[in-house]
This record gives sequence, structure tokens and C-alpha cells, in this order.
Amino acid sequence: MPEIDLLKIINILGTFSFAISGATMAMNKKLDAFGVLVIAFVTSIGGGTLRDVLIGNLPVGWLSSERILLLIFCTAVGTMFFDKYIRKLPTTLFLFDAMGIGLFTIAGVEIAESKGFNIPVCITLGTITACFGGVIRDVLLNHVPLIFRKELYATACIAGAGVYFAIKAAGLYSEFTTFICIGIIVALRILAVKYNIRLPAFYSPASGKDDDPWES
Amino acid sequence: MPEIDLLKIINILGTFSFAISGATMAMNKKLDAFGVLVIAFVTSIGGGTLRDVLIGNLPVGWLSSERILLLIFCTAVGTMFFDKYIRKLPTTLFLFDAMGIGLFTIAGVEIAESKGFNIPVCITLGTITACFGGVIRDVLLNHVPLIFRKELYATACIAGAGVYFAIKAAGLYSEFTTFICIGIIVALRILAVKYNIRLPAFYSPASGKDDDPWES
Amino acid sequence: MPEIDLLKIINILGTFSFAISGATMAMNKKLDAFGVLVIAFVTSIGGGTLRDVLIGNLPVGWLSSERILLLIFCTAVGTMFFDKYIRKLPTTLFLFDAMGIGLFTIAGVEIAESKGFNIPVCITLGTITACFGGVIRDVLLNHVPLIFRKELYATACIAGAGVYFAIKAAGLYSEFTTFICIGIIVALRILAVKYNIRLPAFYSPASGKDDDPWES
Repeated sequence: MPEIDLLKIINILGTFSFAISGATMAMNKKLDAFGVLVIAFVTSIGGGTLRDVLIGNLPVGWLSSERILLLIFCTAVGTMFFDKYIRKLPTTLFLFDAMGIGLFTIAGVEIAESKGFNIPVCITLGTITACFGGVIRDVLLNHVPLIFRKELYATACIAGAGVYFAIKAAGLYSEFTTFICIGIIVALRILAVKYNIRLPAFYSPASGKDDDPWES
Repeated sequence: MPEIDLLKIINILGTFSFAISGATMAMNKKLDAFGVLVIAFVTSIGGGTLRDVLIGNLPVGWLSSERILLLIFCTAVGTMFFDKYIRKLPTTLFLFDAMGIGLFTIAGVEIAESKGFNIPVCITLGTITACFGGVIRDVLLNHVPLIFRKELYATACIAGAGVYFAIKAAGLYSEFTTFICIGIIVALRILAVKYNIRLPAFYSPASGKDDDPWES
Repeated sequence: MPEIDLLKIINILGTFSFAISGATMAMNKKLDAFGVLVIAFVTSIGGGTLRDVLIGNLPVGWLSSERILLLIFCTAVGTMFFDKYIRKLPTTLFLFDAMGIGLFTIAGVEIAESKGFNIPVCITLGTITACFGGVIRDVLLNHVPLIFRKELYATACIAGAGVYFAIKAAGLYSEFTTFICIGIIVALRILAVKYNIRLPAFYSPASGKDDDPWES
């Protein structure tokens, strides 16, 4: 079926884009070739791995998908050599990334749904699938995760997953639902970056201390 | 039974306090609303999640406890709006936190015991349940975990869990045992903070290097 | 059989060396006694734990190996008191460490093999077993993992694991294979440190930014 092929292509583009994002950030931190490889893998498969561990879907999926592993490996190696050219295609990579998080979100939602979890938990697991590879990447690179402080990212995933369940609740589910939801996530990401839309941050003037606020 | 209700109330107060602690520290780091939510969740459920993963108790518990998830969500949102007032109640929050770690420790010990682990492993898993939500919170916020460097925290959990097994070994186990152990943990926490009691730190004058000491 | 005894001794020396490395680095960061204990444990058992979680081999192994836990505990406590003397034996500790990663790599490979994973995945899981205890240690101590940026470490594990499968493919597998592969890993580590051999790092002059390169 053409739909399945299209999903496969989006999966490949998304994984490709996640691996490049990981490899590029690792190179920015001056890691060696092994470090770049690890960060590329972690960025691509970290979210799905965390989801699989939390729901007990073990061994985790990527241990059995050689083609995805090979794709990440080649992408990371290619990024090390052609970094200069890749950096010149920011819009293309941004779009691959947006499609990737869209697909990963809905894929995570569907896996969670098939295990019988309720709707808020399915939305959470979809968002974890799409976003926590980047969180683990940032922890390994020793900075506060980007998605906790920049323009709408996880929020786009949550919205797309919410629409998925709204369509289902309205009895309108069809073979196009996945594409509609991915499209919504991509559109939200484009708007967020274009207009630099951020979630509000709330902090008091006393902020800045690292320690527990009420224990000292 | 009144005991069960009291344990439920302590669980709610502890979760509430952990979520506030996470949300407040995330706001100190100027995270956006999504980041604050994630850190509040991780602080509250991270320890139990790590325990469940290590012992293979999957899917992890919180995926099926909607009420706890709703409590954390509302607490985190409330903290964002009423942060200023919450910071004025440090003693109350400290007591909730102390009761929370007491309860989480003994709950973790009992789960480990029911799986047939030996006593030191049960004490370890109880301590992980109570303390590692805070460790994951600190890793995500990019600082060295607080419990590795401030006044007695994990030690209080270990002591309370030890008393639990001492009571059992003495044949004195009753429906009050859990409360006695939680009380001991709360008392130790109060003493530790009041008198700033710390574990000793051992380090040589050559300290301060990040690298492996014997490999360069 | 003498071979089994020798493997046991290597396992003990490796665990001992990993625990000392963790404890020493934790002391360099001025952690308290509890923090030093946790870091010693994490360094020793973190890699095997991650492997067991990924393949669903739960509960993780160390929850049932009291002797290993006792060894790590005593090593960490001993390091706190005799740090000054231990630091005078860098070559000895380096050799124990090299034998430890050799053994852990091959042990991880054999466990993965017994679960039916293909060769690249077995090599990956062997490398994770040997190297990711140190990665988790570095994340908890709040620096970018050492193995992502210093002389050959994971690469030695990958090479040793590769030779293991080459020997098997050549039909030469015998009771000595494990020792040969451990020997290769030890030899590569010695050469890497002696001649300061590193993997190349690739980065462009624009490096140094923490943020996604193409999203701002």
C-alpha cells in the first residue's frame, strides 16, 4: 500500500535527520568519532528505547532492526565527513526533523494504544518517543535539555497526539489520520520556529539558586 | 482501615511535595512550562520507575495510576502560578518531603521483599525509590545530585529501612511498623537539617581534576 | 577448571578496579560518603545493568550477586580511607581496569549471543557492558563522558569483540578464545595509553554552540 511506503520514507527521513542533529551537536562539543556515533544513535533511538523500557516491550525494538542501525551508522559517518555541506541545508533538515517527530509521536501513540493504556498515557508515551532521544543526547552532552527551554517542540507532539484521539472520538478515523496528525505537528513546528513561539517560563526574582529552595 | 487511609494521605503529601520541589528547581533554572512539568513528574515518579525497571516490574506503575499523574500535573501547574506563596512555607514542605521519602522508602522495601530479594537489596531498592527521583531531576537540570553532597538524606532512608528489618527479625512486626519506620526517617531528616549533619567527605589535596586519576 | 577460576579472578579484579575508579572520581568532586558509594556501584555495574534492561534480562543481575555487591562496598570504603596509597599504584589499577573491560566486553557478547542477537548487536551490547558504567558515572558527576573524548577505549572493546566472532567464523573457537580476546583488548588499551592514540575528532570552525545548528 502506498501509505505504508510513505510512512517508511518518513521514518527514514526522520531517523536520518535525528542522527544528523545528534552527530552535529556532538561535533560541536568536539567529541571523537566514537562519541559522535553514540550521540547519533542515542538521539535517533533514545525516545523509542525509553518508551519500550517503561512499558516492558523488551528487548527494545532497535536491537532487531538492522536497517535502522545501518542507516544511523552511515548517517553519522557521513556527517563527520560532509558536515560543512550539511550545515548549508538547515531548512531541509528542519523539515525532516519535523516530519520525524510527527511520525515518532503517532507511532508511539499507536504502540501505547495497542497495549491498552488510557489516552493521557498514550499521548505521554508518544511525546516521550519523539522527544526523549534529544533529552538523553543533551544529558550526555552535559547541557539542560533544549526542549525544556526553547520554542514549542513537545507541545507540538502533544497537540498532534491530541488531535489523533479527537479524530477517533469523532468516529472519523481513516487511513489518512496518521498523515493528518503528522501534518499538524509539522505545521506547528514551522509556526513555532518561524515566529519564535515559546511556552511561558515562570520564575521569581529569587531564582538562580541550584539548591532545594526550602531546605536551607 | 484508618492505617491505609493514613498511608494514602502520606503518599499524596509526599508526591505533592516532590512535585513542588521539582517544579521550583526547574523554575530556578528558568525552564519553560513544559520543562517544569517534566521535572515535576520525574522528581515524583523517577525513583519508583528506576526500581520497577531494575526488578522487571513492567509496565512501570505510574502508567496505570491516573490519580497520581493528575495530582502531579495540578501541583506543577499550581506551583508555576503560586510559586511566591509556596516559597513562604518551607517548613511545611520540608515535613511533607520528609514524610514522602519515609513512605516511599518503606513502600519500595515492601515491594522488593515481596519479590524475594535479600535484606541488603531490599534496603537498596527502598532507598532508590525514595532518592533517585531527585537524582534524575538533578541530572536533567545539569548539576551533581544534591543527595551526594548535602546533609543526611539517603542515610535516613537506609536507617529507616534497617529498623524495618530489625523489627521483623525481633518478631515485633505489626500494623504500626510502617509508621514507626516512617517516623524514624522523618526524625532523622529533621535532626540532619536542624543541626546540618553531613556524612564525611574524603578527598585528598590533589582533588579537583575531572579525569581518571591514574590514566594520564 | 582452571579457566573458570581465572575468569572469576579477572572479574573480581575488574570490578575492584572499576569501583576504585568511580570512588576516586567521586572524591575528586568532593562528594560525601554516600555519593562515593553510589558512584562506585554505578561505575561497576552500570554497563551490565543497561545491557540487561535493553534485552529484558530482568531483574538485573547484580540484585542477586551479593558477593559482587559486598566487593564493591568494601572497595569503595577502602578507597575513602586509603585513597592516598591507592593513587600511588596507577599502573596496577590501569591493568586491572584493562582486564576488567576485556572480560566485561566478552561476557556481554556471550550473553547477547545466547539471546540470539546478530553479530553487530552482540558487539554493541558487549561494548555497552564494558563502557557504559563509566558513561553513567560521568553523567552523575556532571561532565561529558570521558570515553567520548579520550584515547581508544570503546574501540578496543569493539576490536576484541570483533576478533571473538572472527575466531568463531574461522571455526577456531576453543576454551582459550575468551582469553585471547581479553588479551587483545588489554594490549590495545596499553598501546592507546602509551602512545596517546585517539580517534579523530571532526569539527568545523563554527563549533562551540550548544544549540541545534539548523534551528536558530
